[in-house]
Amino acid sequence: MSNNPAILFANDAFYLAVAKRDNAAMAEVWAIDTEVSCLHPGWPPIIGRDDVLESWRRILGNEQQPPIEVFGASARIVGGCAVVLCYETVSQNFLIATNLFVRENGLWRMILHQSGVTSPPEEFPETETLETVQ
Amino acid sequence: MSNNPAILFANDAFYLAVAKRDNAAMAEVWAIDTEVSCLHPGWPPIIGRDDVLESWRRILGNEQQPPIEVFGASARIVGGCAVVLCYETVSQNFLIATNLFVRENGLWRMILHQSGVTSPPEEFPETETLETVQ
Repeated sequence: MSNNPAILFANDAFYLAVAKRDNAAMAEVWAIDTEVSCLHPGWPPIIGRDDVLESWRRILGNEQQPPIEVFGASARIVGGCAVVLCYETVSQNFLIATNLFVRENGLWRMILHQSGVTSPPEEFPETETLETVQ
Repeated sequence: MSNNPAILFANDAFYLAVAKRDNAAMAEVWAIDTEVSCLHPGWPPIIGRDDVLESWRRILGNEQQPPIEVFGASARIVGGCAVVLCYETVSQNFLIATNLFVRENGLWRMILHQSGVTSPPEEFPETETLETVQ
């Protein structure tokens, strides 16, 4: 997979917004002119910018929500979309995420996020090299 | 969401290949010229056409594998990609899937499949109207 820095930057911005519980930054992450979808594990699918951002306000406003860490991101451009796959760790559980982005006004903005349970990767980075977003 | 018939046809072809345990049809579903990824729930991420098709050979060759039914598909085109969201039912469990397609030689072919646990939809179609693929 190619790893376009601008796309990985957009992907990092998403997890940074999560880590900082920053709703304004989260609103910047998501597309404005393109319909967006968010598939949180175990939740009903959430369609539309307003509902997606509201779901994140609930998550980020929940003091019991454990940190979400990201590592192992790979990005590629297919058609006009950017596809990022990355691991997430939440309370020592491993998730794999698909994050889709499109360009809007020169910026890569997220149009879809799905994360779901995966098995621990064979090559799990040492803790000190984790790309932590706490 | 718009629902492009050609994309929904490609999505149906995927689930039909699953239902019929048809590895040749499954090979037709997936892209040839574009790197593909498949994220089965709980499995490690599978990257690359050969490994993705091998994973499906294992699943479709497993006589204990329960049927996978699909319903509620919605499709839209973003840039050069088609994004399909649909529900799956497996042994009365509800999954939500993201299926991505690109056009190769005039056909929409799958480049990514991720399915993961979701909650039962509020509007669950009656059994007789389910778009069953068994």
